[in-house]
Amino acid sequence: MRVLGIDPGLRNLGWGVIDVEGSRLSHVANGICHSGTGELADRLRRLYDDLHAILIRFGPDTAAVEQTFVNKDGAATLKLGQARGIALLVPAQAGLRVGEYAPNTVKKTVVGVGHADKAQIAHMVKMQLPGVVIEGPDAADALAIAICHAHHARSAAAISAAKKEVGA
Amino acid sequence: MRVLGIDPGLRNLGWGVIDVEGSRLSHVANGICHSGTGELADRLRRLYDDLHAILIRFGPDTAAVEQTFVNKDGAATLKLGQARGIALLVPAQAGLRVGEYAPNTVKKTVVGVGHADKAQIAHMVKMQLPGVVIEGPDAADALAIAICHAHHARSAAAISAAKKEVGA
Repeated sequence: MRVLGIDPGLRNLGWGVIDVEGSRLSHVANGICHSGTGELADRLRRLYDDLHAILIRFGPDTAAVEQTFVNKDGAATLKLGQARGIALLVPAQAGLRVGEYAPNTVKKTVVGVGHADKAQIAHMVKMQLPGVVIEGPDAADALAIAICHAHHARSAAAISAAKKEVGA
Repeated sequence: MRVLGIDPGLRNLGWGVIDVEGSRLSHVANGICHSGTGELADRLRRLYDDLHAILIRFGPDTAAVEQTFVNKDGAATLKLGQARGIALLVPAQAGLRVGEYAPNTVKKTVVGVGHADKAQIAHMVKMQLPGVVIEGPDAADALAIAICHAHHARSAAAISAAKKEVGA
């Protein structure tokens, strides 16, 4: 199973692709989409085009997007929301189911605690994806989201298989 | 010139299309896109598909989207932001320039004051687009945004023409 993780942001949108075989994870690619400057609509179009190209290139089977942290800065939340709309739309258009995980869930799954800092996340991502070269913090977060989604998908599959076995 | 106005919202996204010939405005169509229920990514995809179909059907030359009112409810702002991302993206993908107007600017242009209520807006939209049947408040707002954009585009064109005349 190939998983695309997305850490949405208007200026920098992190993405990471991993392969999952049983309990084995391997790194495929990661990077950051930059929306550049100019009018908002054009910046969103750029994010869409870049994400779309990533989907075509790597052909993930499933995707996951971080649940945006809602803070008191309404303007920042709005910007993030707009980028997040694109991050959810593109994989949905490709027929993928899109998982959503709160930052705390991602951290708990990848690091073991809900309040890990960026350096810890990058460290654990590197541990779990040997040989990975991470393009930046946003890409590290995106890989962490992909790892989180892989774990949750595996748990769900295991539960479903166990239910089948006992005839539930 | 044909103008598409969009009042973004995740549940109900209002849209309105008007034609502009000199100072004459006429109604073309208006409606509301419903994202329905289910997963957020699928709801955004539905909004995208509906808006895309509207663009194909009515072929506007330009578009305008209301600047979302940022309030203290972060979760609501985020939802709106996600829908707004789609509202900006779709016309930009069609090569249209997308104007953005604050609610107060729209009200001032259409009603004459910045604090008009929904009923006043609908009334003034009906005055300016004789014979229009409005599908609902969100569609009335979208038509108001289109009217606002038409006025601003006309002013910009008039200034540009005057400058040419005096050789500026």
